[in-house]
Amino acid sequence: MSYQAPLCDMRFVLHELFDISGHCQLLGNGLDRELIDGVLEEGARYAAEVVAPLNRNSDEQGCQLSDGQVRTPDGFAEAYQQYVDNGWASMTGPSEYGGQALPQMLACNFHEMLMGASLSFRVYSGLTEGAVLALYKHGSESLKNTYLHKLVSGQWAGTMCLTEPQAGTDLALLRTKAEPQADGSFKVSGSKIFISGGEQDLSENIIHLVLARLPDAPAGVKGISLLLVPKFVAAADGTPGERNALSCGAIEHKMGIKGASTCVMNFDGATGWLIGEANQGLACMFTMMNDARFQVGLQGLGIGEAAFQGALRYARERLQSRALSGPAEPGKAADPIINHPDVRRMLLTQKSLVEGSRMLAAYCARQLDLEHGHPDAAARKAAGKRAALLIPIVKAFFTDMGQEVASHAVQVYGGHGFIREWGIEQLMRDSRITQLYEGTNGIQALDYIRRKVLGDGGAELSALQAEFSELCDAQVGRPALAELAKSVQARLGEWRELSSAVIAASQRDVQEIGAVSVDFLQYSAYVLLAGFWLQAAARAQDALETGSGEAAFYQAKLQSADFYLRRVLPRASAHRESLLGGADCLMAMDEASFAF
Amino acid sequence: MSYQAPLCDMRFVLHELFDISGHCQLLGNGLDRELIDGVLEEGARYAAEVVAPLNRNSDEQGCQLSDGQVRTPDGFAEAYQQYVDNGWASMTGPSEYGGQALPQMLACNFHEMLMGASLSFRVYSGLTEGAVLALYKHGSESLKNTYLHKLVSGQWAGTMCLTEPQAGTDLALLRTKAEPQADGSFKVSGSKIFISGGEQDLSENIIHLVLARLPDAPAGVKGISLLLVPKFVAAADGTPGERNALSCGAIEHKMGIKGASTCVMNFDGATGWLIGEANQGLACMFTMMNDARFQVGLQGLGIGEAAFQGALRYARERLQSRALSGPAEPGKAADPIINHPDVRRMLLTQKSLVEGSRMLAAYCARQLDLEHGHPDAAARKAAGKRAALLIPIVKAFFTDMGQEVASHAVQVYGGHGFIREWGIEQLMRDSRITQLYEGTNGIQALDYIRRKVLGDGGAELSALQAEFSELCDAQVGRPALAELAKSVQARLGEWRELSSAVIAASQRDVQEIGAVSVDFLQYSAYVLLAGFWLQAAARAQDALETGSGEAAFYQAKLQSADFYLRRVLPRASAHRESLLGGADCLMAMDEASFAF
Repeated sequence: MSYQAPLCDMRFVLHELFDISGHCQLLGNGLDRELIDGVLEEGARYAAEVVAPLNRNSDEQGCQLSDGQVRTPDGFAEAYQQYVDNGWASMTGPSEYGGQALPQMLACNFHEMLMGASLSFRVYSGLTEGAVLALYKHGSESLKNTYLHKLVSGQWAGTMCLTEPQAGTDLALLRTKAEPQADGSFKVSGSKIFISGGEQDLSENIIHLVLARLPDAPAGVKGISLLLVPKFVAAADGTPGERNALSCGAIEHKMGIKGASTCVMNFDGATGWLIGEANQGLACMFTMMNDARFQVGLQGLGIGEAAFQGALRYARERLQSRALSGPAEPGKAADPIINHPDVRRMLLTQKSLVEGSRMLAAYCARQLDLEHGHPDAAARKAAGKRAALLIPIVKAFFTDMGQEVASHAVQVYGGHGFIREWGIEQLMRDSRITQLYEGTNGIQALDYIRRKVLGDGGAELSALQAEFSELCDAQVGRPALAELAKSVQARLGEWRELSSAVIAASQRDVQEIGAVSVDFLQYSAYVLLAGFWLQAAARAQDALETGSGEAAFYQAKLQSADFYLRRVLPRASAHRESLLGGADCLMAMDEASFAF
Repeated sequence: MSYQAPLCDMRFVLHELFDISGHCQLLGNGLDRELIDGVLEEGARYAAEVVAPLNRNSDEQGCQLSDGQVRTPDGFAEAYQQYVDNGWASMTGPSEYGGQALPQMLACNFHEMLMGASLSFRVYSGLTEGAVLALYKHGSESLKNTYLHKLVSGQWAGTMCLTEPQAGTDLALLRTKAEPQADGSFKVSGSKIFISGGEQDLSENIIHLVLARLPDAPAGVKGISLLLVPKFVAAADGTPGERNALSCGAIEHKMGIKGASTCVMNFDGATGWLIGEANQGLACMFTMMNDARFQVGLQGLGIGEAAFQGALRYARERLQSRALSGPAEPGKAADPIINHPDVRRMLLTQKSLVEGSRMLAAYCARQLDLEHGHPDAAARKAAGKRAALLIPIVKAFFTDMGQEVASHAVQVYGGHGFIREWGIEQLMRDSRITQLYEGTNGIQALDYIRRKVLGDGGAELSALQAEFSELCDAQVGRPALAELAKSVQARLGEWRELSSAVIAASQRDVQEIGAVSVDFLQYSAYVLLAGFWLQAAARAQDALETGSGEAAFYQAKLQSADFYLRRVLPRASAHRESLLGGADCLMAMDEASFAF
């Protein structure tokens, strides 16, 4: 399937909505508009011309394991080499290790493009960036000097080795062991499953970040340490040296992302080194996990965009039945199906969800940038709190959204949507993993409410709501936007009340936390997107009033905002009513009675 | 994956909710409870022991086409032979042609079991029953005598050949031709796609029902005729005779139901015979299509049940994390995940949707039975109208529901849900077709509102609402049910108001029909299910009050009803608000602006 990066919308979000040039200045980064647009355009070319053409075949061909070697789909190795050679791998890496230290607000657009072009291909490189972050933040100087340059450049790739058969969500159940050696290294033994890119033929070395227990570790999550375990131990000259005692035991046969190897990794006394303090592995891993969760959110967004593009293309080409109001194209045998209101409903649902999510992604990326790069320490802390609040929403909402949008695309294609050659059903299969990995979406919702909302008694959430409320206040007096602004303002008021009710209920009964979590996250996301749609409408209205830019583009923004408010935002009502239904009706039934 | 027919619930629905024995008496059919339960139990055994074990392999092995022959997955041919030998094929067939003429209200339970055990396997036999109906109702005596016995017994299978590359939803665009011959037969030429079971190795003959145009036919849907085109023309002795000029040109590679052959069928001057009058093909085909749509609804239900069973089994076995309220099973390393409220939310959503839909299926099957078998002509007509109103709801809502329930099952399994060997992701892939074939769910929604609601100015819908309202009135005075009954009554009032608004808006602006159709169908379905849940709760309360049967079963029914009302029914609010958002926000955007 072809894929074209949505450059028009990306530029709108970056420049008009979030002033990325000003953002770069604040971060001390001298990127100007020309450079930013240049990166976007080059990225778009790479995604469309190099990566996207590999995606369909990668699904049919999959990965092959033989003699412990994984063969990735045709073309992946060459595309990965370009990815490294052209500096895409090092975009966000720290400059002291050869990275370009570009802001996430820019990089996330390129990453979205990669996800949309081929999720399978992106899986291999995505975790390396998280590994760089964890190592950079928590690793010893010696480990950093040995491994970071090659990870930043992408010559070496990183993985995250958390899951074991008995330990998925519940890392307390981890059994992998790390035995200290006299030279300060550790011997790591155990078996990990679901390791994305655990073995592959793209990079010359693979650096595994492995959660394991030291011999004297306390039980549970307080006894978990993070270790760096390379496939090849780095030689003194920085090249891959001795082969380590680890191997890929099997690769999984999956519903989707078949071009990405998902490995069982066996560590048989493999040599590793501690990252950070002993028993502090979870905290170190969370540095990586936050990045990974943001990236997985982008996967939902990227696949959503690709699915929307496919559906739109088909809806404009496919001739079937006449418009309800009479022939739209009398010269043709039938009208393009985009004339049918229900097809438009699906397309606009896709468009308004994808574009709404893109605004939230950029906003969240901005917080991540400010957390790491704002000159003021208090501002860094504030941005960190904001990002922490938003990341579970981005991860869970975007990936549910990506699945929904892909499913709408299948529906627009009708029976053809079910046929593999069109490439549309692949998007549904590929995106389904995003709701599961890096913490299922149920776990994201628990993280959101338990740690991020209840964790500070709702303070950060209130601050976010207040920020959006101010944005509404600023627009409510403009006649063209008053209806929209009032409607968003009303939802924000409802959200504040609902938040208080949820916090009170959760403090009264601990089961309420889990009973309302998913609905509360979804509710929050729909209202947040409404806030962003109001902002987009305000910028569009500005542009129409000043006559700058292409009027049709801004008109479409106003129309999408209107559609979102009228036809998508009502879902928030269902989530609100449902969560107010409470925990009792969930907990009442005896376990045995479920089987009747 | 294992599958066990939900006999407990089926017996509850058939005997306690809908008095199937009385229903059979009314139809002049002497089935008693013992016989009915015997059929259910034998059906359950066949589905669980013969069909279900074939399903996982059928997905991996798929179908193979070579030299025009399709090879179905291992075991399908033997299982099909048992299906024929043991009389499952002839359950609903007319008795004059060797059928058992069992009521749909009973048969639909067996069919649901088949769908749950293996949708791919069921696809081959499902359309034969529709072909029997169409031929029985519209065929000439000679055609019926030649073909019906073997179709009823299942020795020969039937297909539906509608779709062509340019003609999916829009049958007006059909090009396949039928040229009359001197002997009264026709030569059929053209290419059909997406023909389920178009070629297979299960039955000794395949009887295609083909839509085609006669030379003098008017353009559009008024020029379509239905023809019977056998793979082997029946010989005088009733055996398969001369091979007809038709062939399978290709089989599709699909997202799911890989064990079902989906064929491109080429008719190269194949001999066929008219069924019904020339140019009346669509009306004849609709006899078949209504049955097929009801069956596809059952597919959603069956897969939903299978997915719920899988999720429940896993949720009771999988140990991960501790319950929020403290360890539920302190002796184990962690608690079974069924202790977590959010897992219960998913399981109860599955359970209440599946069981709610099963009640609607039985209710709809009753109408189908009464339409054909009620002794009174006016009652037959009334039942036909009721069935016609409900069938698009059953088809669209059940199949959306099946997909949702399968997706919840994947989510309960976490990462394992994405791995093929567990068989859970297969349910998502298999069920996805049900939202597309026999008319996409968008088309069902248009049929519902345009033909079934607007067609008689809302009269039949009003009658249905009044019937449910009376059921509420009967329960609202019982203290144990008053809250439930009032809440359903309120929704019914809201539904009546909404219906009036929808009808008025559609009469004002034709675009509103397509703009509100899907939301209105979904809204209607959620409220209908609420009505059935109230009925189930009333029967459960009766049983608890009289102390009959197993109290825990009835207690669970009350709890499921309560859950549905509190946590699922709120979705109706979103559909209501969304559809009131109207058509303007769908139609405003220029086609070109979608691409920005």
